[in-house]
Amino acid sequence: MTTRTLEKMRASVPFLRWLAGSRFAKKQNQEGIADLMFGNPQEMPVAKYVDALSEKVVPRDRGWFAYKLNEPGSTAVVARSLTERTGLPFVPEDVFVTNGGFAAIAVALRTLCEPGDEIVFLSPPWFFYELLVLAAGATPVRVPIEPPAFDLPLAGIERVLTDKTRAVLVNSPHNPSGRVWSKEDFAALARVLGKRDQPIWILSDEAYAKVVFDGRRAASPAEIWPHTLVLYSYGKQLLAPGQRVGYLAMPPTLDEAVRRAMREDVLMSQCATGFAFPNALLQHALGDIEGVSIDIGALERRRDRFVSALRALGYETTHPEGTFYVLVRAPDGDEEKLIDALADRDVFVLPGALVELPGWIRVSLTANDSMLEKAIAGFAAVLG
Amino acid sequence: MTTRTLEKMRASVPFLRWLAGSRFAKKQNQEGIADLMFGNPQEMPVAKYVDALSEKVVPRDRGWFAYKLNEPGSTAVVARSLTERTGLPFVPEDVFVTNGGFAAIAVALRTLCEPGDEIVFLSPPWFFYELLVLAAGATPVRVPIEPPAFDLPLAGIERVLTDKTRAVLVNSPHNPSGRVWSKEDFAALARVLGKRDQPIWILSDEAYAKVVFDGRRAASPAEIWPHTLVLYSYGKQLLAPGQRVGYLAMPPTLDEAVRRAMREDVLMSQCATGFAFPNALLQHALGDIEGVSIDIGALERRRDRFVSALRALGYETTHPEGTFYVLVRAPDGDEEKLIDALADRDVFVLPGALVELPGWIRVSLTANDSMLEKAIAGFAAVLG
Repeated sequence: MTTRTLEKMRASVPFLRWLAGSRFAKKQNQEGIADLMFGNPQEMPVAKYVDALSEKVVPRDRGWFAYKLNEPGSTAVVARSLTERTGLPFVPEDVFVTNGGFAAIAVALRTLCEPGDEIVFLSPPWFFYELLVLAAGATPVRVPIEPPAFDLPLAGIERVLTDKTRAVLVNSPHNPSGRVWSKEDFAALARVLGKRDQPIWILSDEAYAKVVFDGRRAASPAEIWPHTLVLYSYGKQLLAPGQRVGYLAMPPTLDEAVRRAMREDVLMSQCATGFAFPNALLQHALGDIEGVSIDIGALERRRDRFVSALRALGYETTHPEGTFYVLVRAPDGDEEKLIDALADRDVFVLPGALVELPGWIRVSLTANDSMLEKAIAGFAAVLG
Repeated sequence: MTTRTLEKMRASVPFLRWLAGSRFAKKQNQEGIADLMFGNPQEMPVAKYVDALSEKVVPRDRGWFAYKLNEPGSTAVVARSLTERTGLPFVPEDVFVTNGGFAAIAVALRTLCEPGDEIVFLSPPWFFYELLVLAAGATPVRVPIEPPAFDLPLAGIERVLTDKTRAVLVNSPHNPSGRVWSKEDFAALARVLGKRDQPIWILSDEAYAKVVFDGRRAASPAEIWPHTLVLYSYGKQLLAPGQRVGYLAMPPTLDEAVRRAMREDVLMSQCATGFAFPNALLQHALGDIEGVSIDIGALERRRDRFVSALRALGYETTHPEGTFYVLVRAPDGDEEKLIDALADRDVFVLPGALVELPGWIRVSLTANDSMLEKAIAGFAAVLG
């Protein structure tokens, strides 16, 4: 029954089909495996998060579980958070809360795109960028980011811009490389975009903005470029991706008339994306959970342990500045051999080919300490 | 910044713009008004529902709030429920859980539609059908249902079918008329669809399937026509529309090969619709809440009280067989005059024009008893 459109979408997400037949699929819920596959929790949820939900699940008025849209309480929390993080005075009217960052990206694309519009994104990308660009009726345009530096590919972006370019999708901290691009990087990107006649939007996927190491701050392109939509997910800072809450926001530097017109457009797109608002419970709890986070220090210590252990073994790895992920280059570029040898030892990692980075594998630091040690032992053993 | 596509979508949902400037918008959160506008709760949530959420909000394992897709526990609950309701042995593999019925409709349309496909729906419709058809790139085709009988318009449907017709969207119990069409009605519809060469799908919006009066059962077209997608929302039976959970399901009578192909298509569409899965908490609680409902008897008593009171006053009204809604014809067909006169008395009802039924107004029985009495007094007073 597959339609042509769906067939194209399916081709854009090879990992959904791969997953069904993979060795990981058969073992993923077994005790004792080292699961470094996705950014999924391998420890119990953060206590403060559970406390906030437990408290707010008790209804205080008859409208507690009524329809919720962009509720004033929620948008105020987000505006304050963004103001603190970026130094720009975001206003609640320009915040749109969504059921996760996934939906925020879908809503942004739906808002901006006409058929024929081109959306530029960087490769290696997040799994679903291309799917969502196709679903919005637009045309995906890829720009490679070169390993091992993973610098922002300014020349590559400039080369693909056309009169049809509607937006450039940027993700910093970057999954899977862990790069955190600087404010200067975004200023340089702004100079590239500024050469074009039409105002090109930056869609800024900032899901990992609060997962940064070594005292870094993740700058937002919104600090530089007014035509930016900030896209955020609370699923990373809380490591609770099954409870969907995120947002889309416009910076106050964006022209007032543009923002006014956009407000109705985004609301319409939230409806068109299957009523993409967070559940009532998460909106009630947002003020309590906005400042809650997993232990980033523990994540940083795991990065240090893993990277130094693998480098000591002779592997080439990234040294992530943020995100959950470390990339490891497969010896002799033979990714499949490494993945299979690790799976033999019950260590499961993501094939780089599934994020357009063949020859590498991706490891998630959301693994707990014992999984991480098992993984390190596995990486040692496969070297024989 | 509005795109042409969005402009068309906006035109399809006049109530979103109307709402912002309406008298209701200014007063909706005030105490003492009679709010009969939407199917929103005007009493405290059902205790058993709150108990289920409170219990399941406490995590039992580290994956409690991890990514959730079509979880086996959830799909098994739904398959059992549908088997009981329809008599057909639905299987869990053919159930896809969504963040609400809204998303179920969006996912179904996204799964089936190519640009140029025609989707037939009945008018008066639910607010968002046309928007979602447009968002899926398809062409909306309307068939009127004639008041005051609101019979299933078989001849009207037959007249608009073409080689491009991909699906007919049917909603029983029907919002806003309250009609519950019978199994025989759907058999007649099947005979109409069976005359066409291509297999036309029935998209069956059954959000109100459990909100039926006088001992009725709401039949599903799936009992008759294998090419049916059952679309459901728990938001009505629980009167908790801010907590999004619903589903899409294929009947076991549908050809096995078609179902196998559709399974991957629907999963892809759930992703393309912004990751349209229910939150982890609602999936954990689904087994507990599947059998929970608001007091349908109380709703039925409110229907009886309201309909008999208004008819005694001389108004023409529907006598709903299900749903939350009663339709009232405005004296002399002057809908705006009636709405304004009621608003003067702090009674707020939905203009029929917003659901393509000018000259009528829609009243929601989710109002509590004191709101309902205030409304009846208002309807009496405006007759002068």
